[in-house]
Amino acid sequence: MFKEVITPRFYETDAYGHINNTVVNQWFETARRPIFELFARGPDIKDWCIILARTEVDFIGQTYYGKDVEIQSCIERIGNKSFVVGQEMYQDGGLVARGKAVQVHFDQQLQVSLPLTVEQIEQLAKWMKPGDQ
Amino acid sequence: MFKEVITPRFYETDAYGHINNTVVNQWFETARRPIFELFARGPDIKDWCIILARTEVDFIGQTYYGKDVEIQSCIERIGNKSFVVGQEMYQDGGLVARGKAVQVHFDQQLQVSLPLTVEQIEQLAKWMKPGDQ
Amino acid sequence: MFKEVITPRFYETDAYGHINNTVVNQWFETARRPIFELFARGPDIKDWCIILARTEVDFIGQTYYGKDVEIQSCIERIGNKSFVVGQEMYQDGGLVARGKAVQVHFDQQLQVSLPLTVEQIEQLAKWMKPGDQ
Amino acid sequence: MFKEVITPRFYETDAYGHINNTVVNQWFETARRPIFELFARGPDIKDWCIILARTEVDFIGQTYYGKDVEIQSCIERIGNKSFVVGQEMYQDGGLVARGKAVQVHFDQQLQVSLPLTVEQIEQLAKWMKPGDQ
Repeated sequence: MFKEVITPRFYETDAYGHINNTVVNQWFETARRPIFELFARGPDIKDWCIILARTEVDFIGQTYYGKDVEIQSCIERIGNKSFVVGQEMYQDGGLVARGKAVQVHFDQQLQVSLPLTVEQIEQLAKWMKPGDQ
Repeated sequence: MFKEVITPRFYETDAYGHINNTVVNQWFETARRPIFELFARGPDIKDWCIILARTEVDFIGQTYYGKDVEIQSCIERIGNKSFVVGQEMYQDGGLVARGKAVQVHFDQQLQVSLPLTVEQIEQLAKWMKPGDQ
Repeated sequence: MFKEVITPRFYETDAYGHINNTVVNQWFETARRPIFELFARGPDIKDWCIILARTEVDFIGQTYYGKDVEIQSCIERIGNKSFVVGQEMYQDGGLVARGKAVQVHFDQQLQVSLPLTVEQIEQLAKWMKPGDQ
Repeated sequence: MFKEVITPRFYETDAYGHINNTVVNQWFETARRPIFELFARGPDIKDWCIILARTEVDFIGQTYYGKDVEIQSCIERIGNKSFVVGQEMYQDGGLVARGKAVQVHFDQQLQVSLPLTVEQIEQLAKWMKPGDQ
């Protein structure tokens, strides 16, 4: 499991007075940053070999401007060419959103999915929940 | 079913050269606009009585700058206090993303969910897929 | 002069209940789209040879969700390697924002600015305000 | 002067491979956060009494994903009802953008601008550049 702390920004609110729902997907992407580094072949983002196949988000409570948010991410399942990231977002001690992201090892030049490497699987496994490995 | 045509914007691309995945959630929200009007009690957005409980998106193909996108939205299920919107996004004749959104009739002042009214159910039913009603 | 009509989106509002100020820059970029096409060497955005050097925006009135916005763009000045775009945004008949953008003909591979071509100057000149040429 | 450190996010890049220009305005707004607190009458954002009248940004260099950005903000001028914020953005030791924002003390309910209070002026003055007061 790994964590990301995010300070809500004013432009991320909407006319309801809360953080807009679509921003939660942006924050969850941001919180998956350590995973992207596992799939970077070089300094250029164009050489990353990872894509997103699916996202799910449950909005459990409202998220507000003025208080930091903590996102906890863990790996829920490791497949042959893809894996599932589980994410939970907390504000003020309460769970406000929960999500899943299915990411795929993918060669952008060749446009084909690739088997996860041994190194990738080892690192992803370290981020599984205790008892899940 | 109802449709929304969206012209991709340059700032919506990312370093992969395509439309960023998080933008698809923004476009799907935008395409649900006719639904929001069903839940507006007055001209002020603060008086809308609808919230989002869940979203799912499957990313099927890449979406590019330079060609319009069409989003088709329909109602998949009508519950007592909530309903499910199914959405499909097409570019250049191909399906590029598919999503679901669970929306809830909700009183923002009282912070309670409300039963759908007869008028809301009737209008939502008109947007169901042929054969689904 | 050329025009772009934009329908405000819900996620573009902020907690003040209006369209967030930072969105105006996004819309102005979007409205400059026809200009970008003048600087596209091929279908890939990476081959566009135009960059932004400066923006100015005056916020004159509030912009609301629920009514379309019209952006009028014209070329105000043509230099050797750069030019100035003037933009005005109207909602409900009133001017709500006014901006300027300084764009530069630029080779992204070589990282050098380039003289505007005769063809670019001719097209840009057609977008000048009557009486400005 | 006060500082804000921002970690660029993937969705903030564009197809040029850099951080999109419109994002700089979002970051500059974010970096003005301490100022907003001076104009908050209560916990609700709706009760903030500050609006934005003008922004200017000079884009000096490209901003990249992968390295933190530091934004330095100071007060450049204090008027009767408004003031000017000067902002500079650095990445990797180099200045990449410079901006100005004109903000106005404004009552959102009454829709009128207000004279700055003695307390606001005193705090703003503390953020002026050395030698500018």
